[in-house]
Amino acid sequence: MSDARYPTDADKLAVAAEQARIGLAEGGIPIGAALFDGEDRLLGAGHNRRVQDDDASVHGETDAFRNAGRQRSYRDTTMATTLSPCWYCSGLIRQFGIGRVIVGDDVNFLGGQDWVAEHGAHVTVVDDPELIAMMGDFIAANPALWNEDIGED
Amino acid sequence: MSDARYPTDADKLAVAAEQARIGLAEGGIPIGAALFDGEDRLLGAGHNRRVQDDDASVHGETDAFRNAGRQRSYRDTTMATTLSPCWYCSGLIRQFGIGRVIVGDDVNFLGGQDWVAEHGAHVTVVDDPELIAMMGDFIAANPALWNEDIGED
Repeated sequence: MSDARYPTDADKLAVAAEQARIGLAEGGIPIGAALFDGEDRLLGAGHNRRVQDDDASVHGETDAFRNAGRQRSYRDTTMATTLSPCWYCSGLIRQFGIGRVIVGDDVNFLGGQDWVAEHGAHVTVVDDPELIAMMGDFIAANPALWNEDIGED
Repeated sequence: MSDARYPTDADKLAVAAEQARIGLAEGGIPIGAALFDGEDRLLGAGHNRRVQDDDASVHGETDAFRNAGRQRSYRDTTMATTLSPCWYCSGLIRQFGIGRVIVGDDVNFLGGQDWVAEHGAHVTVVDDPELIAMMGDFIAANPALWNEDIGED
């Protein structure tokens, strides 16, 4: 783990946004996430890999969680994600007790962010115009792929 | 995909149970799962791989879901799991609209099975004595590892 610090919400969301852009450049769904410890150090970052790995189980948040490695407690961690976490990723946040969530865009999709807040996570919604535009453009151009990713028939 | 059929709940749960036993033999947490299509064919099976792969993101249900490959719809699928799905796996079931869930043991752990039922999944709890004993013995012998797997501090 690098000792670099990402003290602000904007710093943390920028790491997630970079992951989303990497995913887009790979031909994938542009959703990225990053998990930070209580001292603002990056534990792990990742992005949706449905297309790249043909893997339906890898959303941005689950990839960041995996890449963070095994942690004994998530109470002091913060998950930054470019898009409001779906129920799958919201369940991850609740089960592991991730303490804070920073959401870059809840305009294009609204998952379980209010539910994780009800169950104790501190949720901050940024609604960043660049992230909203990137995801909105992607959904408009790839509706079938997007519906597959969120399990919509 | 094999054309073999697993018509009964016991048939389906047996596939999940075999996965749990494989995990135990590997030195891992003995939780297995399997996903079946609407014609009772096995789409994918898997087990918890936290210890084996040092991967916190691979629960039994998420491994079975991954191994099933990308599916266009989960409405007619059934997830058999040896242990009541945690919130992470319950979120998976809800987000992707998995139609049925067969739970082998809700004695050692109770996750979000009632919540997924409220949101439309048909949930059957079997409470199989062998599965309950296997998981109970494992938790008693490995409390720290078990608490790590469910995010308990």
